[in-house]
Amino acid sequence: MRTIAILLYIFTICFVSQRLFAQPLHSYIDPLIGSEGKGNVFIGPSCPFGMVKPGPDNDSDSNSGYSPDTLKPIFGFSHVHVSGTGGGPKYGNVSVMPYMGAFTQIEQPSLRTDQKLEAGFYGTTLINGNIRVEITTSSKVAFHRYFFDGAGEQGIKIDLGKFLGEEPIPDAREAQQFVGSEVEIVSDTEICGYTRIRGGWNNGAAYTVYFHAVLDKPFASCGTWIGGTIYPKVKSQYDLYEKTGAFLQFEGESTIQMKVGISFISTLKAKQNIESEVPHWDFAKLLTETQARWEELLSRIVIDASSTPSQRTMFYTALYHTMLMPVDRTGENPLWTAEPYYDDFYAIWDTYRTSSPLLTLISPKRQADIVNAMLNIYKYDGYLPEGRSGNSNGRTQGGSNAAVVIADAYVKGVPGISYGTALRAMLKDATIPPGGNEEKEGRGGLTDYNRLGYVSNEFVRAGNRTLEYALNDYCLAQVAKGLGRMGEYRRFMQQSNNWKNLWRDVESEGSQGFIMPRDANGSWIDSIRCDRTEGRTSYVQFTPLAQDWPLCVCWWCGFFYEGNSWEYSFFVPHDVPGLIEKCGGSEAFRIRLDTFFANGYYDVGNEPSFLTPSLYHWIGRPDLSSDRIRSIVETHYNATPAGIPGNDDSGAMSSWLAFHMMGLYPNAGHSYYLITAPHFKQVTIHQENGKKFIIKANKLSKRNCYIQLVKLNGKPYEHTWIEHQNLMNGGELVFEMGPEPSIWGRNCLPPQKIYQ
Amino acid sequence: MRTIAILLYIFTICFVSQRLFAQPLHSYIDPLIGSEGKGNVFIGPSCPFGMVKPGPDNDSDSNSGYSPDTLKPIFGFSHVHVSGTGGGPKYGNVSVMPYMGAFTQIEQPSLRTDQKLEAGFYGTTLINGNIRVEITTSSKVAFHRYFFDGAGEQGIKIDLGKFLGEEPIPDAREAQQFVGSEVEIVSDTEICGYTRIRGGWNNGAAYTVYFHAVLDKPFASCGTWIGGTIYPKVKSQYDLYEKTGAFLQFEGESTIQMKVGISFISTLKAKQNIESEVPHWDFAKLLTETQARWEELLSRIVIDASSTPSQRTMFYTALYHTMLMPVDRTGENPLWTAEPYYDDFYAIWDTYRTSSPLLTLISPKRQADIVNAMLNIYKYDGYLPEGRSGNSNGRTQGGSNAAVVIADAYVKGVPGISYGTALRAMLKDATIPPGGNEEKEGRGGLTDYNRLGYVSNEFVRAGNRTLEYALNDYCLAQVAKGLGRMGEYRRFMQQSNNWKNLWRDVESEGSQGFIMPRDANGSWIDSIRCDRTEGRTSYVQFTPLAQDWPLCVCWWCGFFYEGNSWEYSFFVPHDVPGLIEKCGGSEAFRIRLDTFFANGYYDVGNEPSFLTPSLYHWIGRPDLSSDRIRSIVETHYNATPAGIPGNDDSGAMSSWLAFHMMGLYPNAGHSYYLITAPHFKQVTIHQENGKKFIIKANKLSKRNCYIQLVKLNGKPYEHTWIEHQNLMNGGELVFEMGPEPSIWGRNCLPPQKIYQ
Repeated sequence: MRTIAILLYIFTICFVSQRLFAQPLHSYIDPLIGSEGKGNVFIGPSCPFGMVKPGPDNDSDSNSGYSPDTLKPIFGFSHVHVSGTGGGPKYGNVSVMPYMGAFTQIEQPSLRTDQKLEAGFYGTTLINGNIRVEITTSSKVAFHRYFFDGAGEQGIKIDLGKFLGEEPIPDAREAQQFVGSEVEIVSDTEICGYTRIRGGWNNGAAYTVYFHAVLDKPFASCGTWIGGTIYPKVKSQYDLYEKTGAFLQFEGESTIQMKVGISFISTLKAKQNIESEVPHWDFAKLLTETQARWEELLSRIVIDASSTPSQRTMFYTALYHTMLMPVDRTGENPLWTAEPYYDDFYAIWDTYRTSSPLLTLISPKRQADIVNAMLNIYKYDGYLPEGRSGNSNGRTQGGSNAAVVIADAYVKGVPGISYGTALRAMLKDATIPPGGNEEKEGRGGLTDYNRLGYVSNEFVRAGNRTLEYALNDYCLAQVAKGLGRMGEYRRFMQQSNNWKNLWRDVESEGSQGFIMPRDANGSWIDSIRCDRTEGRTSYVQFTPLAQDWPLCVCWWCGFFYEGNSWEYSFFVPHDVPGLIEKCGGSEAFRIRLDTFFANGYYDVGNEPSFLTPSLYHWIGRPDLSSDRIRSIVETHYNATPAGIPGNDDSGAMSSWLAFHMMGLYPNAGHSYYLITAPHFKQVTIHQENGKKFIIKANKLSKRNCYIQLVKLNGKPYEHTWIEHQNLMNGGELVFEMGPEPSIWGRNCLPPQKIYQ
Repeated sequence: MRTIAILLYIFTICFVSQRLFAQPLHSYIDPLIGSEGKGNVFIGPSCPFGMVKPGPDNDSDSNSGYSPDTLKPIFGFSHVHVSGTGGGPKYGNVSVMPYMGAFTQIEQPSLRTDQKLEAGFYGTTLINGNIRVEITTSSKVAFHRYFFDGAGEQGIKIDLGKFLGEEPIPDAREAQQFVGSEVEIVSDTEICGYTRIRGGWNNGAAYTVYFHAVLDKPFASCGTWIGGTIYPKVKSQYDLYEKTGAFLQFEGESTIQMKVGISFISTLKAKQNIESEVPHWDFAKLLTETQARWEELLSRIVIDASSTPSQRTMFYTALYHTMLMPVDRTGENPLWTAEPYYDDFYAIWDTYRTSSPLLTLISPKRQADIVNAMLNIYKYDGYLPEGRSGNSNGRTQGGSNAAVVIADAYVKGVPGISYGTALRAMLKDATIPPGGNEEKEGRGGLTDYNRLGYVSNEFVRAGNRTLEYALNDYCLAQVAKGLGRMGEYRRFMQQSNNWKNLWRDVESEGSQGFIMPRDANGSWIDSIRCDRTEGRTSYVQFTPLAQDWPLCVCWWCGFFYEGNSWEYSFFVPHDVPGLIEKCGGSEAFRIRLDTFFANGYYDVGNEPSFLTPSLYHWIGRPDLSSDRIRSIVETHYNATPAGIPGNDDSGAMSSWLAFHMMGLYPNAGHSYYLITAPHFKQVTIHQENGKKFIIKANKLSKRNCYIQLVKLNGKPYEHTWIEHQNLMNGGELVFEMGPEPSIWGRNCLPPQKIYQ
């Protein structure tokens, strides 16, 4: 497989990218984009969907372990991370740290300088002791090399007690909690052990990260610690539910290399991962292999050479971010043996909208693997994942959105998925309440939803749950229909109208009709009683602009999750025409959209409004969609470390950007992409089936940013959307661009929900 | 601790048992009782509540691994077992087997002969190769010794691919499923590894059993296998989701000893368990220590020397069986660190009735530990256990009966339990449906129960669920009241009458009124539609003698679990006077009880009718209770291998017997014991608080089996029950026995349910 990857890489270099750019596509990956501000991306090296993500930790409250603040010392380089997440951190396990001198204390922090990052590579210099650290990685093995000045005593510590998001309060919400650890120095070049942690953002059950580390030269002396006490020369510490670690001392070394194999099932498997993935000591070779793996995937979508370096960096880094997660843990599942196995769906609420569709475009085979992994989770764990991390389902923010991922694959004809099983899995979400912990999986408030047609205010997040369940029901119905299950099709198509049950005829800022809270008797709720009182009861008057969370009720306890009614009342992706009708028709809808953006109600940094800038398409104004999108991209995205406007959420923000730069935008669960003005003169999509689809934008310039007319395979094309099948078939979509909006698209609205 | 145990043992021998018997009490343990017929007891050595239970496996479909059939060859001695269970087997992990000759095939079965068993000891001779096997155990370490004839090549295999209840169909219900295994020969005397299994009776998630084995002499050669292929000289096999194992070859050895440390968290911990529990090679010393631990517990209840050897064997073996499970896994929890931790609640449906009360009598400290472990399970896993095994909750047969265990401890004043947490845990069971898998935990059909006051026929096991929830509600109410939570007290006392909602005025065999199925609209169900049709729909007419399971619907799908309405309509342990009223008064109730026993409707081998023989107490006829009990004991229990009439269910059947032999019987969840005619002239209960309570039966003989009069601490005692506090305070309960029933108890009925 690796040989094939390298050959493909060479092929790619020679015939694809080389033809367009002077350098390989992976060189446009800038791992620092999204590392400042809210992005929370992981900055260290990783393979596509790689299990091991080694990187610097200098902030244990940071979701990625990393803080751009150079005054925060690095306390270790740990091996498992997630990218772009919010809430309580997860992972940060098996922390290693080189240092100088004798090991007299467990903590060995150091400030850093001269950071260098590229795809598959992280380097920095630790100021304490002037140690250069360089790291690359395969899927399951990290390769470290440390450069010392060659004098004195060099040390490496491996700390199994470190992890992100620890809090002093036991069982604190969203905090990771220590369960156990173990370390064993098995020879003068080998150390193994594990760390076991539970909790974190998804409140997951305990997970165990095993490691086997091997050094390229023997250490001179060593020791271990447990529970804060250092034991020189003691070679192992067994699991007493205490924090353990090992330290290795060298003398007069100028370079030490270390490979750290990781496994989620055993130390021997971790060792075997080294043997099968990195059986050599050639750092440069591994780096080249890892970059080749990225190159192979990035080269599926080739943009033209006239793009700016900034644009290329933004685009290819966006693709890169989208393929960091979920994580391929096939062969590493401690729970069952059915394969494939992926973990770190973190969370599907974020990724169903654009990340999954982008992956389906780049590699339908990969997407089929991911969906099959989700079905295995349903089969062996009971429910499809919504959030999942550390081998444990949890949490749900709104809907059971795996249904959208499944329907998206189904309507796009992704092969190799058991859609019969998928339908059963979706039906479980839709019919069987998840019980005790409604944050874990399934549909919280389902009894209400199935009885009343909406989730009443007796349940938290009733607003977005109702809206998302309606979308999820639509998605379920599409698969049911395809499988000839017409009874279920009809039931769930009917239910997909349930969003209307929370539509209340109230006015706000000149617009009429909003999703509003309702009690189980059908009465509208005008004010929400707050949890937090200081001597007296307080209420929040509930208006379309009101926000009950997090000040009146907890972050997770509002009527909407991370939004207000202005934002969520646009969220009916499966029935935009129905929504427009409810809003009072096209003109009222346009005014409403304009008000939304003009008044700053749009939240660029979160997923609920991902589709909103494109809604102008449904009133025949794709030019206005393009205006909004261009403005958002120009204002909020760039190629700097602060270039992602919100939590990247496993690549959700990045994939939104990537689609819009191409001029396509998916409505997840539907077979089409909306067409908007592209940011590139040419985009070539190399399909996994061997065919290619080219998008050309003739005369595109900063001024000529409006689509004048469109041709598909040489014929005039009036639709403002294009079917996935058109892309799969190969062909050419050509835009003529001009300086003013045209009438293209005004009389041909995107597909409506059809209920037969 | 061990030293104290030995001192206590010596003390016991000298001052307690020695005074009465010529031999120690543990010598009356016969591990074979219950090993034939339906008992399913584990026959190998075990400490009280011991984690390691090494024993012979010669039937992989047997719940204990053991079959009395000497024509079934032993295929290994595995290290984890449960005792007395039914349904699909669990455990049977880390299987070792000595053999003679070269290792040319993985299977090394042998017939056995000369089996010898005692508390803490199992010995047999393997006919193949004439190898004597002897095993004893500490809590976490098994000590094997093998005697060979000293010539030729000796071998020991350690098989990580063996476990009980494997089936060829993947994911078969109640079957254990293989997940992974690993083995490593770490020196010429040490082997470690693990086996990982999921499923089994409780459909549990994957659990991992780690081991570290150490030999008293080095082997001459070795090898391993994986997936059926043997690799001589290869010293390790990593986890490929394949079955692995190791074999060790010796030459000319006549004795080989091996200690196998077991852990549920790691191989190093397994090794450490050997170092901390069995740091020596003295088999006899370990056996003595283990027997001393049993002696200490058995000597808490001393029966008089005039009892027959059979009676002593039955009684002390019953105590022994009651203390095999649940299993103390403190320090061995891979999920969280809060202690104590017990596993193998298998199932509380069986053990809440008599096992928990017996343990509370023998060692309230132990019972507090067990309840606290249950509360930790609630706290970290979400729900109290009902069934739990392999670190995984599941399954429920009827109620959420942990509530009875908690209330039983509460009303008996067991200290050291956070009853506030316990109330929260019970309230969760009673108010929050368990969701997706209603067999796992919590209360299935709860939405019905809380809405309708009964579980409708839309849920399986609606009959016994309703009855058990009513009892559980009563138990919850007792704790709520004690904590001053009067709102919850009133609500759940009210709900404890819910059994009446399924009481239907139908006639059967001369008795009137039975628990019958009802639909969600309140209509009675007359016939049940069967699942299994052959061409046409079939029904079962539902009468009080009808049984819909397992022929019409599945075993778990009937209206009652493992019973019919005649049996279950006696099940209102918290309101027997209310039940008598419903049945038409005392005389009708007596006739009904008589009919029940005379017509053979009583199922001696299962738990639902445990209390039924004692119900005569509530109509003032304790003599009739005693008649029934004596007859049951004489007919169905004895000191032979077939001496337990049903699955012993972790000692449920055994503890029922032990109580009745003492002349006491608990109504779990209540603070009293019913008094029946004892089987011994004297029983001395040595309390953990240092006080002793003596029960004397003057003139007791086969003929003089009726209580004439009773004195408590010298004063006439008219109650036919005695409070737990009376026992705790120490004292003497003296019966005068005679040949005819007396009027004792006729005018003084047991406590009624009082609702204030």
